[in-house]
Amino acid sequence: MTRFSLKHVYESQQFDLELLDIIFKVADEMKNDLLAKPRLYADVLKDKIMASLFYEPSTRTRFSFESAMARLGGSILTTENAKEFSSASKGETLYDSTSVMCGYADLIVMRHNEPGSAKMAAEVSSVPIINAGDGSGQHPTQALLDLYTIKDNFSTIDGLTFAMVGDLKYGRTVRSLSYLLTKYNNIKIYYVSPLVCKMDEDIKDYLTTNNVEWEEAGSLEKVLPLVDCVYMTRIQKERFHNLKDYEKASGKYILDVEKIKLMKQKSIIMHPLPRVDEISQEVDKDPRAQYFNQAVNGLYVRMALLYLLLDR
Amino acid sequence: MTRFSLKHVYESQQFDLELLDIIFKVADEMKNDLLAKPRLYADVLKDKIMASLFYEPSTRTRFSFESAMARLGGSILTTENAKEFSSASKGETLYDSTSVMCGYADLIVMRHNEPGSAKMAAEVSSVPIINAGDGSGQHPTQALLDLYTIKDNFSTIDGLTFAMVGDLKYGRTVRSLSYLLTKYNNIKIYYVSPLVCKMDEDIKDYLTTNNVEWEEAGSLEKVLPLVDCVYMTRIQKERFHNLKDYEKASGKYILDVEKIKLMKQKSIIMHPLPRVDEISQEVDKDPRAQYFNQAVNGLYVRMALLYLLLDR
Amino acid sequence: MTRFSLKHVYESQQFDLELLDIIFKVADEMKNDLLAKPRLYADVLKDKIMASLFYEPSTRTRFSFESAMARLGGSILTTENAKEFSSASKGETLYDSTSVMCGYADLIVMRHNEPGSAKMAAEVSSVPIINAGDGSGQHPTQALLDLYTIKDNFSTIDGLTFAMVGDLKYGRTVRSLSYLLTKYNNIKIYYVSPLVCKMDEDIKDYLTTNNVEWEEAGSLEKVLPLVDCVYMTRIQKERFHNLKDYEKASGKYILDVEKIKLMKQKSIIMHPLPRVDEISQEVDKDPRAQYFNQAVNGLYVRMALLYLLLDR
Repeated sequence: MTRFSLKHVYESQQFDLELLDIIFKVADEMKNDLLAKPRLYADVLKDKIMASLFYEPSTRTRFSFESAMARLGGSILTTENAKEFSSASKGETLYDSTSVMCGYADLIVMRHNEPGSAKMAAEVSSVPIINAGDGSGQHPTQALLDLYTIKDNFSTIDGLTFAMVGDLKYGRTVRSLSYLLTKYNNIKIYYVSPLVCKMDEDIKDYLTTNNVEWEEAGSLEKVLPLVDCVYMTRIQKERFHNLKDYEKASGKYILDVEKIKLMKQKSIIMHPLPRVDEISQEVDKDPRAQYFNQAVNGLYVRMALLYLLLDR
Repeated sequence: MTRFSLKHVYESQQFDLELLDIIFKVADEMKNDLLAKPRLYADVLKDKIMASLFYEPSTRTRFSFESAMARLGGSILTTENAKEFSSASKGETLYDSTSVMCGYADLIVMRHNEPGSAKMAAEVSSVPIINAGDGSGQHPTQALLDLYTIKDNFSTIDGLTFAMVGDLKYGRTVRSLSYLLTKYNNIKIYYVSPLVCKMDEDIKDYLTTNNVEWEEAGSLEKVLPLVDCVYMTRIQKERFHNLKDYEKASGKYILDVEKIKLMKQKSIIMHPLPRVDEISQEVDKDPRAQYFNQAVNGLYVRMALLYLLLDR
Repeated sequence: MTRFSLKHVYESQQFDLELLDIIFKVADEMKNDLLAKPRLYADVLKDKIMASLFYEPSTRTRFSFESAMARLGGSILTTENAKEFSSASKGETLYDSTSVMCGYADLIVMRHNEPGSAKMAAEVSSVPIINAGDGSGQHPTQALLDLYTIKDNFSTIDGLTFAMVGDLKYGRTVRSLSYLLTKYNNIKIYYVSPLVCKMDEDIKDYLTTNNVEWEEAGSLEKVLPLVDCVYMTRIQKERFHNLKDYEKASGKYILDVEKIKLMKQKSIIMHPLPRVDEISQEVDKDPRAQYFNQAVNGLYVRMALLYLLLDR
């Protein structure tokens, strides 16, 4: 196997096609092995310790990483509310916290409210840092599992057309995924959102520079028949000045059994979860619905990352 | 061994005598083995992951389950305040949360504020769910360890007389235990409580239908000489309209060294803990006091359950 | 090896030179071994369970203990906010909580807001209790790792001169370390602090009784050239009646690159962490700065303690 050159994982831009291939190959292998022989990996990272340092709550993401570590036989130190409960509340800098924590763990998974915090921690840390979401910044492992799920459904990612729907301004998952898609050829992305949460210029510029076609759209119905993958996200009330505007806007971007009839037979529906009502529950039974598969795939992608970063 | 047919544990009504026998036999065996050879079970569930999903705080119950899992060599994912800190606060349904979590763990222990939530989760989940308390609903593993403790003290449960004392309306432990006692013959239960927290009709009807004799009483002193087992519970201030009523009521249901003189020589005193002042501390030294033994027995009963649900 | 006679660790006064030697020898051994063969200790405490019972938040201290336990292969039960989330909030006594918890774990690490609580728990507990800080009381394992770090830097502790700086009244680390230093010969301690947070009389009396020379000083600059070790602590705003007094006082006790020029070439700078601004970040690069080493040493000292208390 080609040597895995990354030390930390803080943003999607770090990955090239070669790295993505390594990660996905290891994830595939683990997925297959675990189904057949669950004890196969139970000692792989036996002497390693992962610290979950969550300055913001996210049981889902935290459990996904911790489950991955447990499946590989590693130990876990965990905090679900580092901000309120740790010395951060006494005014300690992230620099100091990281310097100390990397003496206690062999790898740190960090969720933080400040964009750029994971990268900053990586600069100080003597052990690998994985960004598990840094405010409105990035969530690179979510982008990896998204891409892995897409790859799992289509023979190749080249040539696919996407719709990213909902809160594109503050949704870090669509930002991170957009970055990753520039690694492939003939990609087209439709950004479908209310005016107040349009995708930021930096991403659109990055796509243009990297030869990815993109287009903004207001109507979900018009875009649905055109895409191979619709990626839904939750629109947050807080983005709107008044409740009426919110209800009008969010109502337009709900995927229900009627709307998915507009989609291609061989297309997929994704969502980073948690959802509120932007995909109705009846859609779950449609074979195109892939959001719960995304969650499961997250486990294997994170197992692969932990293994590649730690087993050296 | 007869095959253990349960997939989930959400309410006391699921258990029949055969299932109870299996659980208690395994618990007995583990209790004896662990005292002699603590490492004997250290690899039994080595490749299994248990998730503690606590939407309400309960360090005691959570530690009991996690200790049981650790003694069997399994891994643990834990959250002590899922409600406030997880995507539940973003409006996600229990249906979605469960669907995702069962991809990360091989078994989920759930404490939730809504009655019926564990059963609902069990309907969705691909992995076993254990109800660790669902609001004013049930707490079936507490009932199991209560029953196990009773069995440990008397040669047989048939023919025993009980007093359940305190907050019978909101105390789910006395509800769950009442259900379980219907499996045995010639049981009599005295329900001793202030008027505002009397046992609900549904339980009393269930007992009548299942040929268990019951009687309501206001005086603890009159009942004490008649019973083999007194099961004390805490009366909560919030149930009363004013503090005076509360103090008057709760004062009547305190077990102290004077009152236990009224009890039979061969009887036992139980409490699900935590206690505040409904049993005075001097009673702890009396050999009839079994409440700390209950806590220890909880460990073995939960080990047995985890083993029976997971080792397949 | 001499038999390790302690059952619990609740205060610095428990240690004599012989016990300190045993702990430091084991810590040294583990430090060397782990660098060379990280898997060497991965099964040592395989069948043991440690419970972190933190009534007050301290991610740093908690992770240090849990990392130590994980490196020795043990299991961990953890709670980061026992006070708010456990039955303590329902009015349960520490006596009851401890009685129950010692049925679930083989050792309890306790942080509590009440001075004396760890010692009280130790009186009830059937398993070892380690005090991880009891309010303004003590933090004995911090004192042990401080002493271990001093020993690591100087051939012998006898004859060294110390400055303890900052909040000496409420800082339990300087209290615990002062106790330990009485075990050595020809020690001199300068207590440098604002008037409102002077070292309490009990410690100064204890030093006098035990033939340790001490002196109070207001000026950091005057003391710095005289000492082998300066131990900085954070001054808390809450101690002062108004903000101006606080700013004036705390400003006087900041260690920066200018001030450390006054220190001996072969001296060390310590801090229990977290720091706010009492040591400027540029000082970190100076080889005399030992505060991040203290944190790392904490791991080995705690591994040694866990091993000595549990491997019997």
